[in-house]
Amino acid sequence: MAAIVLWLVTVVVVAVHSASAGVIESEWEVGYKFWWPDCKEGIVMAINGKFPGPTINAVAGDTLIIHVTNKLSTEGVVIHWHGIRQIGTPWADGAAGVTQCAISPGETFTYSFTVDKAGTHFYHGHYGMQRSAGLYGMLIVRSPKERLRYDGEFNLLLSDWWHQSSHLQELLLSSSPMRWIGEPHSLLINGRGQSNCSQAAYFDKGGGGLKQCTFRENDQCAPETLRVEPNRVYRLRIASTTALASLNLAVEGHQLEVVEADGNYVAPFKVNDIDIYSGETYSVLLRTNSIPSTKHWISVGVRGRKPNTTQALTVLHYVDAPDAERPIHPPPVTPRWDDYDRSKSFSKKIFAAKGYPPPPEKSDDQLILLNTQNLIDNYTKWAINNVSLSVPATPYLGSIRYKLSAYDLKSPGKVLKGDYDIMKPPVNPNTTKGSGVYNFPSEIVVDVILQNANV
Amino acid sequence: MAAIVLWLVTVVVVAVHSASAGVIESEWEVGYKFWWPDCKEGIVMAINGKFPGPTINAVAGDTLIIHVTNKLSTEGVVIHWHGIRQIGTPWADGAAGVTQCAISPGETFTYSFTVDKAGTHFYHGHYGMQRSAGLYGMLIVRSPKERLRYDGEFNLLLSDWWHQSSHLQELLLSSSPMRWIGEPHSLLINGRGQSNCSQAAYFDKGGGGLKQCTFRENDQCAPETLRVEPNRVYRLRIASTTALASLNLAVEGHQLEVVEADGNYVAPFKVNDIDIYSGETYSVLLRTNSIPSTKHWISVGVRGRKPNTTQALTVLHYVDAPDAERPIHPPPVTPRWDDYDRSKSFSKKIFAAKGYPPPPEKSDDQLILLNTQNLIDNYTKWAINNVSLSVPATPYLGSIRYKLSAYDLKSPGKVLKGDYDIMKPPVNPNTTKGSGVYNFPSEIVVDVILQNANV
Repeated sequence: MAAIVLWLVTVVVVAVHSASAGVIESEWEVGYKFWWPDCKEGIVMAINGKFPGPTINAVAGDTLIIHVTNKLSTEGVVIHWHGIRQIGTPWADGAAGVTQCAISPGETFTYSFTVDKAGTHFYHGHYGMQRSAGLYGMLIVRSPKERLRYDGEFNLLLSDWWHQSSHLQELLLSSSPMRWIGEPHSLLINGRGQSNCSQAAYFDKGGGGLKQCTFRENDQCAPETLRVEPNRVYRLRIASTTALASLNLAVEGHQLEVVEADGNYVAPFKVNDIDIYSGETYSVLLRTNSIPSTKHWISVGVRGRKPNTTQALTVLHYVDAPDAERPIHPPPVTPRWDDYDRSKSFSKKIFAAKGYPPPPEKSDDQLILLNTQNLIDNYTKWAINNVSLSVPATPYLGSIRYKLSAYDLKSPGKVLKGDYDIMKPPVNPNTTKGSGVYNFPSEIVVDVILQNANV
Repeated sequence: MAAIVLWLVTVVVVAVHSASAGVIESEWEVGYKFWWPDCKEGIVMAINGKFPGPTINAVAGDTLIIHVTNKLSTEGVVIHWHGIRQIGTPWADGAAGVTQCAISPGETFTYSFTVDKAGTHFYHGHYGMQRSAGLYGMLIVRSPKERLRYDGEFNLLLSDWWHQSSHLQELLLSSSPMRWIGEPHSLLINGRGQSNCSQAAYFDKGGGGLKQCTFRENDQCAPETLRVEPNRVYRLRIASTTALASLNLAVEGHQLEVVEADGNYVAPFKVNDIDIYSGETYSVLLRTNSIPSTKHWISVGVRGRKPNTTQALTVLHYVDAPDAERPIHPPPVTPRWDDYDRSKSFSKKIFAAKGYPPPPEKSDDQLILLNTQNLIDNYTKWAINNVSLSVPATPYLGSIRYKLSAYDLKSPGKVLKGDYDIMKPPVNPNTTKGSGVYNFPSEIVVDVILQNANV
């Protein structure tokens, strides 16, 4: 899939009404725990013994003070607050090797930062494969003056899950030659999925040959259903923290009105399903119909790679529908994985809502970045402009602040030299590992063009 | 098993003849690697891509300079030089949380120390379960004026191995309630064992129902045989770095003359087999017989726990015996696991060789330590005098040196109060976690009595 993404680096200054700004303070302990995310026992990286981690419900302007204690035995840990701009608090961004050293076992690090702007966000581990191990949760920042009108809301945190431990996955992927981990064994909605059964097996084509799931109360893999009233509007806050899978979400019998993307309001548009890539968030408004006793499947399936993972399912449960009753229509069929025109069509519908400043008319500098998969000494590495990032042991931020120069001081090329056809990515025999950075003066506009040659 | 061990803490000053003292400098990279220790693929913690780690061959008085680079993704690492006294170099002892912080991923730490005294030693990881993951190797310090006479020598590094990853083992053992990992799947000699076959299956009783092993050249689980000449004396340097198993080693048709224990020469005595507990080392002299064409099994089996692990085997291969021929006698039978009288009888044969100073006639202080297994908040913890060690995040040595007081300043009791019968260990409902230390003035003699109530 050849996607050309234009990043226009802009700084949007938002006036924060902080009269009522509050403080949310929590103590988190991170540790491994046995868990049954998809009805099979595995190991998750839990926060305070729970998977996924706690949902943070904040209001724009609030200060979050999260004391993270590392209860792992030998591993460091960090938490990255995905989507939070960390204006004035770069040390709290939680990217190991970039903004901080990993928190050592037994140590506590306090993340303190302001969530300056309303939006649907999430947080996740940002060290090794700890995000894949399940270190994630939702981070909701509400507006004190919400412009959207709705009657209720639900969070849907989407992820992918493997039965191999994240340690094994990491070793497989980093072996020479690379050993592929395979497609995810399951997709999870709020940390819950099924791999050895299907909730929709009672339809001829719904179960993919799997047996019908039966859940006991409190099963960790039992879906959280969305209980709704008729004739209401609900906001679904959707985030994807997958390691591999690009996803598509649909609600049978209902349209979705996209109103927010990656923490920004967008000009509303209606679709039958949304594509969501790892790291993205959306809010969609769902208007319930007038019959109070129906149930409808919410499906999450794989896009962009030939799927070998069954859909994750949960239920939109109208208030009068009996608990024991099943949806009468099958789950939505996920659009064909390689229907790229459909993907582009969805992306091209997304425009900023009214009130945001327009993108800068011209840029002061430009980066053209080509993303390729390469072999370095027979190890499979991703590279940008022929450099595969080797995260330095000393974090960049401290290195710069204290003039330690503990990274490659030579900047990588701003443009990959030579002609290439993005549909036939160059072999790049000269790819190297490096830790160089691009340096820019402040207050300029840089036009970043990322070309994905992973056809 | 009730064992009473008396530790007489003494400082033996050895005059080092350092005229020819050398420097051994190495660069080590520690990382995970797929390996087949017992003919089944697992993951080992390798040094420079090898398991076990490299054997260090030094001469007393040499300085070792080992640059250890942590190539793990998220885990810290240290190397402890087991048996080395680190006189004047406590920072190089390599116990995480005690003498140093763990080396962070991507960082290099240089261990620099003198091996002041000849002896058979080994090194191993000393952080979390990294020793169980296979982070170990032999450390041989020869005497420039060896008092023993022998014609050749072999190293036998013994360990136990599980098919679960060390991460899984750790989580199982530290879960509430504790989930037992089971007996080892195999015993390894120099990192090589067999779990799904037996080399001695061709004897009626030798294989335990397993099929006969067949090895291909370069199989990582194929035994290293000991090739010997007739009518010679060989020194076997034996070390045990097991996580759980107490072991017994025997060589079919040969007596063993014990000459060294834990790096000290002992008054020689002959036995048919030796008991060896985790952390111990022995040297035994083996005199080969006069027939140049025989093969004999060397067996390593479990003692002290009801075994569910087949013997590790390798071969004493006389020079004229054809490669394809098998030993004609079955492997030695490991003594019954619960024959404690035999264990004590072996221990009581060990006396210092002539020339060592006698133990101090009296002690200035005394510690009576009772070792018990306890429940703390439904977690299974070992405790000494009712305190289960919680290793502080800041290492003791730095904490003391820089007056950080980053550990419990209250010393635990020198004697566990109350009457108890060591064969009926007390319930110890008041067991707590702690990091207190015993403080003693220098140059005194402390009589340490460790009572093991793990009957």
